[in-house]
Amino acid sequence: MKTRAAVAWEANKPLTIETIDIDGPRPGEVLVEIMATGVCHTDAYTLSGLDSEGKFPAILGHEGAGIVREIGAGVTSVKVGDHVIPLYTPECRNCKTCLSRRSNLCTSIRSTQGQGLMPDSTTRFSCSGEQVFHYMGTSTFSNFTVLPEIAVAKVREDAPFDKICYIGCGVTTGIGAVVYTAKVWAGANVVVFGLGGIGLNVIQGARMVGADKIIGVDLNPGKVEMARKFGMTHFVNPDEVGRDKVVQAIVDLTGGGADFSFECIGNVHTMRQALECCHRGWGESIIIGVAPSGTEISTRPFQLVTGRVWRGSAFGGARGRTDVPKIVDWYMEGKINIDDLITHTMPLDEINTAFDMMHEGKSIRSVVLY
Amino acid sequence: MKTRAAVAWEANKPLTIETIDIDGPRPGEVLVEIMATGVCHTDAYTLSGLDSEGKFPAILGHEGAGIVREIGAGVTSVKVGDHVIPLYTPECRNCKTCLSRRSNLCTSIRSTQGQGLMPDSTTRFSCSGEQVFHYMGTSTFSNFTVLPEIAVAKVREDAPFDKICYIGCGVTTGIGAVVYTAKVWAGANVVVFGLGGIGLNVIQGARMVGADKIIGVDLNPGKVEMARKFGMTHFVNPDEVGRDKVVQAIVDLTGGGADFSFECIGNVHTMRQALECCHRGWGESIIIGVAPSGTEISTRPFQLVTGRVWRGSAFGGARGRTDVPKIVDWYMEGKINIDDLITHTMPLDEINTAFDMMHEGKSIRSVVLY
Repeated sequence: MKTRAAVAWEANKPLTIETIDIDGPRPGEVLVEIMATGVCHTDAYTLSGLDSEGKFPAILGHEGAGIVREIGAGVTSVKVGDHVIPLYTPECRNCKTCLSRRSNLCTSIRSTQGQGLMPDSTTRFSCSGEQVFHYMGTSTFSNFTVLPEIAVAKVREDAPFDKICYIGCGVTTGIGAVVYTAKVWAGANVVVFGLGGIGLNVIQGARMVGADKIIGVDLNPGKVEMARKFGMTHFVNPDEVGRDKVVQAIVDLTGGGADFSFECIGNVHTMRQALECCHRGWGESIIIGVAPSGTEISTRPFQLVTGRVWRGSAFGGARGRTDVPKIVDWYMEGKINIDDLITHTMPLDEINTAFDMMHEGKSIRSVVLY
Repeated sequence: MKTRAAVAWEANKPLTIETIDIDGPRPGEVLVEIMATGVCHTDAYTLSGLDSEGKFPAILGHEGAGIVREIGAGVTSVKVGDHVIPLYTPECRNCKTCLSRRSNLCTSIRSTQGQGLMPDSTTRFSCSGEQVFHYMGTSTFSNFTVLPEIAVAKVREDAPFDKICYIGCGVTTGIGAVVYTAKVWAGANVVVFGLGGIGLNVIQGARMVGADKIIGVDLNPGKVEMARKFGMTHFVNPDEVGRDKVVQAIVDLTGGGADFSFECIGNVHTMRQALECCHRGWGESIIIGVAPSGTEISTRPFQLVTGRVWRGSAFGGARGRTDVPKIVDWYMEGKINIDDLITHTMPLDEINTAFDMMHEGKSIRSVVLY
């Protein structure tokens, strides 16, 4: 069949809207009509050409929501008409990692996904006879996309696609890091480095679980108002306290250090500050941001020996099929706010403006409506 | 009263045996007759002059066992005649850290202890009228020493002093890191960098809790026999597999990486290897070794974002008064082996030979018997 899609033909060029060919689902796969998709920094990173795994031509996009329109042979966990969120981190429930019960980083289809291929090492997309690669196993910048059954989360049907698509990446990455990775407890003091979309989701996750102080750190005071709306209680501007005094400012504010800190920037220097502002004895720092390739984090080992813990989080530590539907419930129950984070919507034709606004810092999240 | 003690008059000089004056216990303090004390690398480190907190003249020693001979006003938790192990990490049960239930690093007397003083900012030791400093709050190289009540663990009276003194530091540091810090589970694959005294105790701790593979890493094949006796199942010699291939060798041996690794050397390069040989998704690396001051650990943040955890352990994460008596029980019940780790004993007069043998790598642990 045919579908419309935004195709990335090569690095650093705008996407172009094409009518492409898409093959139907093979065994274990489903065809999903994407109703809405967010545009995320990770799409921009790959489009920039810096992503060593990035392949072109490809259909980017990994933050969607839609409806199952066709199922391949043997598919049992979803049926035609189900509402789903595509999962770039699948959940097979059978691999070593899934069975470990200690990690969400399912490895069942990792190698083909990283190569832009479906699990059988082929693609479902082509344009004028030329093969087009999948991206993160999701390719939500196509109106119709094909996914492995294990890479869709079935969600309730009364949830609006134009909001819950954001749960496919940003919301889960931030809130999940609080709930699943860090397991922040009620009364904890939490510090959030970077008040972009991920940071705001960390903040509202911390509020949801009853954190006490929720301290935001950002160079841009323009972000304070929104962050307070999401639950930030204190703000530290490194340019006001001194860039080399951020750790001390947080230690002072918290009476000894943070119980949890979250780095949502992707800067190895703030990653170090995020660790060192943690409380001696038990403070845990969680890296969420993606640092430029080749950069390294460092600290004195004394920081760890005296009880701080350094860890990271990918997709919020959430198991896609198990936890994503719960986060949709939290949204529908009013426990979390997504509406205010989606600052712009647009049709597929205008998807390049979503990238522009992201680069200009004008949007928190833009959503393409098919 | 008078007591015999080995005094460190200045850095890098042998200790001299002196008859010194010791004041009796003040309120909240106890006088303990030390019956046996181990000689540890940390004593040697301070004696070398590299310890920025080291003060002279001082009475070193922090790994002792003895009998309470006098109690100060208000002391209620121990009585005259009780057998005790001095604690360089006390357990007040009232400070923020003790009450957090998340760390063993009691802070109640930290500042004075670090200055070589009792909690009231004075010393109990003097020699020919000159003040002599305490060390790590314990000073077990004196036949009699004074300690705060919160810094002694009461232990069973049938346990031999010449063995359980080692629980005052090395045994607890190694076994505790497994049991209390890492909480190693039965069936886990464990890697231990450095097969000295601490490493051997990590190994037997891992065996005690039912670890599966217990892999030792050391440059010295002469350590293999003893390590196997304590539970090591596999040995990796970096000079055999290639110093830059240690991580891959461990990943291969474990089918993906270690569930837990322990760095017992104090080298920032092996600390990095210890992290990176951990299993994607959940592997945890615990730093025990003390690195030279000024050195830093580093890694790519990707290592943490993909699920590895970096933490440290001090005094094995053990709460001194609560957990040390349990470890004494484990020894008495035959769950752990201390006897084979104590390779030499000597009278106080010969304490300098304990340092010599340590530096020459001839001993695992030397114990001074009073």
